[in-house]
Amino acid sequence: MRVEDDDGVRTITFDRPNVMNAMNLEVATELADAVAEADPVDHDAIVLTGDDPAFSAGGDIQAMKEREEGPRESYERVAETFNRAAAELLNSDVPVVAKVNGDCVGAGLAIVAASDMAYTVPDATFSCAFIRVGLVPDTAATFTLPRLVGLRTAKRLTMTGEFFDGAEAAEMGLVNEAVPEDELDEAVDEIVGKLSRRPTRTVGMTKQAIHENLDNDWRKALDYENMLQVQAYMSEEHEEGVDAFLEGRNPDWD
Amino acid sequence: MRVEDDDGVRTITFDRPNVMNAMNLEVATELADAVAEADPVDHDAIVLTGDDPAFSAGGDIQAMKEREEGPRESYERVAETFNRAAAELLNSDVPVVAKVNGDCVGAGLAIVAASDMAYTVPDATFSCAFIRVGLVPDTAATFTLPRLVGLRTAKRLTMTGEFFDGAEAAEMGLVNEAVPEDELDEAVDEIVGKLSRRPTRTVGMTKQAIHENLDNDWRKALDYENMLQVQAYMSEEHEEGVDAFLEGRNPDWD
Amino acid sequence: MRVEDDDGVRTITFDRPNVMNAMNLEVATELADAVAEADPVDHDAIVLTGDDPAFSAGGDIQAMKEREEGPRESYERVAETFNRAAAELLNSDVPVVAKVNGDCVGAGLAIVAASDMAYTVPDATFSCAFIRVGLVPDTAATFTLPRLVGLRTAKRLTMTGEFFDGAEAAEMGLVNEAVPEDELDEAVDEIVGKLSRRPTRTVGMTKQAIHENLDNDWRKALDYENMLQVQAYMSEEHEEGVDAFLEGRNPDWD
Repeated sequence: MRVEDDDGVRTITFDRPNVMNAMNLEVATELADAVAEADPVDHDAIVLTGDDPAFSAGGDIQAMKEREEGPRESYERVAETFNRAAAELLNSDVPVVAKVNGDCVGAGLAIVAASDMAYTVPDATFSCAFIRVGLVPDTAATFTLPRLVGLRTAKRLTMTGEFFDGAEAAEMGLVNEAVPEDELDEAVDEIVGKLSRRPTRTVGMTKQAIHENLDNDWRKALDYENMLQVQAYMSEEHEEGVDAFLEGRNPDWD
Repeated sequence: MRVEDDDGVRTITFDRPNVMNAMNLEVATELADAVAEADPVDHDAIVLTGDDPAFSAGGDIQAMKEREEGPRESYERVAETFNRAAAELLNSDVPVVAKVNGDCVGAGLAIVAASDMAYTVPDATFSCAFIRVGLVPDTAATFTLPRLVGLRTAKRLTMTGEFFDGAEAAEMGLVNEAVPEDELDEAVDEIVGKLSRRPTRTVGMTKQAIHENLDNDWRKALDYENMLQVQAYMSEEHEEGVDAFLEGRNPDWD
Repeated sequence: MRVEDDDGVRTITFDRPNVMNAMNLEVATELADAVAEADPVDHDAIVLTGDDPAFSAGGDIQAMKEREEGPRESYERVAETFNRAAAELLNSDVPVVAKVNGDCVGAGLAIVAASDMAYTVPDATFSCAFIRVGLVPDTAATFTLPRLVGLRTAKRLTMTGEFFDGAEAAEMGLVNEAVPEDELDEAVDEIVGKLSRRPTRTVGMTKQAIHENLDNDWRKALDYENMLQVQAYMSEEHEEGVDAFLEGRNPDWD
């Protein structure tokens, strides 16, 4: 996996194209680390992508074949690798943009679902392929999918493991948009540019408020929102945002 | 109600066409029983449908007129009949496909909403008619609808009780698809065929993971997903799925 | 703020058009009061709208500049004003219809999101502008938005603060429909008329069931639904609804 920082953007690239960028335990761990180490002082956004021709084909099935472990080892392995990667993506206060340059299957799809924004090429192949090897969706996909595409579609995708393409992924809300291959970089640059002009700490708090309130009742949600808003009111970002607005200029947050 | 098993598919048919297949307490109880008795060893899917011309007109309003009961009797009656039917549908590890051959109103609509997949004819009439007789949506509809069609549409449908057709039901995500009447059997056969080629126990665990994680926060959801995945990793279905994948053949799960 | 009652409809109008109907603490408090004082015996619906040219530009940014307070004062101020307005909207058993006559930004957008129905003109400008002044979305928007427009779109709108128009708001599910300016009154009158022909107490219980079950697991949701249904079964509205149905006439609920 390559991790490159450039002008406030951390780009993380799955780089095992000969196996369609399949994720093994090492890749999942490196992904978790690379996301965890990004921070809103140094970074405006994280971009996840893959070396052509795939984004990621998901878990390494050969490794599944060779695995010998008991239930507890299995639980701990997942908790420390794939689930940790999902947790870091959901928890990161640096926004995460998936640039889905090609096929996106299983855990690869789950990583996209756990990202905050996602852009794809129309003919990339997607599948919740877990069911095809007798597994349940993991890497947070059982949590994220119904909230992205609705319960009806989430069940169809995960119970059948059927294939669909990037255009369909956009239509159902799994990704923000499907754009032609030669416009994908530009689309991602544009959203990353937009995020760069926002106060990253506040972007992170916005994401936190939304994620935490996905399972709160509305009374608790109002209270949680308010507790975060207090932190925002006390922030330099708020002061600068208000000053800039009243002075009719762009805010300077960095 | 007719219950027929054929080649791993349990078909449950509402068969009171003279009253538009309205559901009384007996029908709800029989439905609950017929779903509860299906199991993933013997069954690949459950299909729910109605004798023409309706799917189900919902609750029996004449029976509501004749009912005399106190609050506790009322609570227990619903818990043991309509709510039990909803619970068995949501809980079944055999996937449930609704074949909506005609009008689908009130509790009939709720049964469709609680099914995992649903196909309808474009001109079937749908309505959350509960409000028209001074009732709140039941048979799990207050839980399922916002997660299928979004909060905005769920409120409109349930607060107004307005009529809409199968084409609109598909557009809003209440059903998977609306297909012409002479293609409905084929559409349902196709999805049932697809489900038959998947490992049913794992399909059931996938459904369980998604349903349980609808109200879990993301940390607990990751943990719940992992605990189910451990069961999947230890299963014969996983072993066969991996072997088949690596050998380039179709898995043999039955 | 103007509050007018006419033929069972309470119309609440933001009336500071010279500041684009921005909401200060007084406006939020008056809104909360006006909603709290509506009741299902006297009212069939609440309509929220603004004096042209805006619906509401959201919070008063000049006031933010002048504010000097500690974290606890900030928390209490929000709890007693904007959050109270959101809570009254979510809690009201009289259905709330937003008539979005013009621009709808920040807290204005959150008020629309907390309303039960919403109609807009196609060229009204919308924005979750909170991020532009270093704040998280408030007035319940972190709770309502993902449930209205899905998680993917909710993140995009709140993290970027991007502008979108009424037509897009309708497409994503933030409002029910975008209609030409000269048809907006008619569209709102039509839905209000429809709501007027429903039993308001039961409409309120339907809303309550849906809101409370947004964060219940399915077992608890079934039980909550049943406990509300018991209240509905014992109501005059149910008795009249059943009688009217069986007699083939329109129910008389008022």
